[in-house]
Amino acid sequence: MPKQVDPAARRAAIGDAVVDIAAEHGFAAVTIRAVARRAGASTSVVTHYVAGRDDLLRQAVRREVDARREHAERVLAGRTGADGLRTLADWAVHAPGERAQRFWLALVMAAPAEPVLRAELDRFTTWWDARVRALVAEAGLADPGLAADLLDVAVDGLITARFEGTAAWSARRSRRVLAAVLAAAGLSR
Amino acid sequence: MPKQVDPAARRAAIGDAVVDIAAEHGFAAVTIRAVARRAGASTSVVTHYVAGRDDLLRQAVRREVDARREHAERVLAGRTGADGLRTLADWAVHAPGERAQRFWLALVMAAPAEPVLRAELDRFTTWWDARVRALVAEAGLADPGLAADLLDVAVDGLITARFEGTAAWSARRSRRVLAAVLAAAGLSR
Repeated sequence: MPKQVDPAARRAAIGDAVVDIAAEHGFAAVTIRAVARRAGASTSVVTHYVAGRDDLLRQAVRREVDARREHAERVLAGRTGADGLRTLADWAVHAPGERAQRFWLALVMAAPAEPVLRAELDRFTTWWDARVRALVAEAGLADPGLAADLLDVAVDGLITARFEGTAAWSARRSRRVLAAVLAAAGLSR
Repeated sequence: MPKQVDPAARRAAIGDAVVDIAAEHGFAAVTIRAVARRAGASTSVVTHYVAGRDDLLRQAVRREVDARREHAERVLAGRTGADGLRTLADWAVHAPGERAQRFWLALVMAAPAEPVLRAELDRFTTWWDARVRALVAEAGLADPGLAADLLDVAVDGLITARFEGTAAWSARRSRRVLAAVLAAAGLSR
């Protein structure tokens, strides 16, 4: 990070460092010292922008998660019902790169032990659940609760399975699985 | 750990400490020092049993993963085809407690950066894939590759979704999702 840099760029660099470290090593490795090193700044520069580790996590996670949500809303714009559900599921599995998906799993894993992460994850999940519920209702599916669960499990499973195995998951392969699960939820292909 | 303890009990205590720390904080937090503290031993006691951090991880992960695999084989004994697939999927989602499932996700997340973990995870995955492939073949499903992918995604998704959300996943709720995905794979309920 250059010495002369505007506050917004500083905040962005600090936020990116948090996401990078969490994605690579998990949130246990996210310390003010590690973030400062990653962002090429001193710890006192970092503590100028955040009130402590919790505030560091809150700001960085909110920035990342809000960007993700805003992207989803742009992709969903004008889409309703079954079309919206298919679009949302495909976006969740295929839009984020490996770093964003690793960050997501790190957040899920760390949330039970870190209240600040739990709160930020819940903020996203509340939005996601409401969005899915509304689309499922529009689609007029016979079993809305099961349909929402199937969509969530397919998205989470495809993200996790991608890291687990040795064989690569092509977009074609994951789209076949997604289509089969969405068909099971009552959405015709 | 008491001072007088037989080597097998020491190894077990060290292995349990690795699994506990990995499940709680991820593998980045698994150091010889942290394991010694957790096991109530000195670092020199730990290094008496392991040749270094990689050996520590290898022994502990293999012990845990082998126990998991042996449990699955006992549960599967005498079961074939569709019955075996349903049993294996139900076992994978419902048999491990929260600690074992957190350990599993931590292993999946850490494997790309730690070759010793990659090797142990691949050992399990090779067994799992062969087991699923054989059961899918016995079941005579129309699309064996899709069926295996659906089973993997449902299992991974149910494990991850359990940590993600605020609402509790009852066994009844996850079994409904599993049954719907297995039906999509061609296994009648």
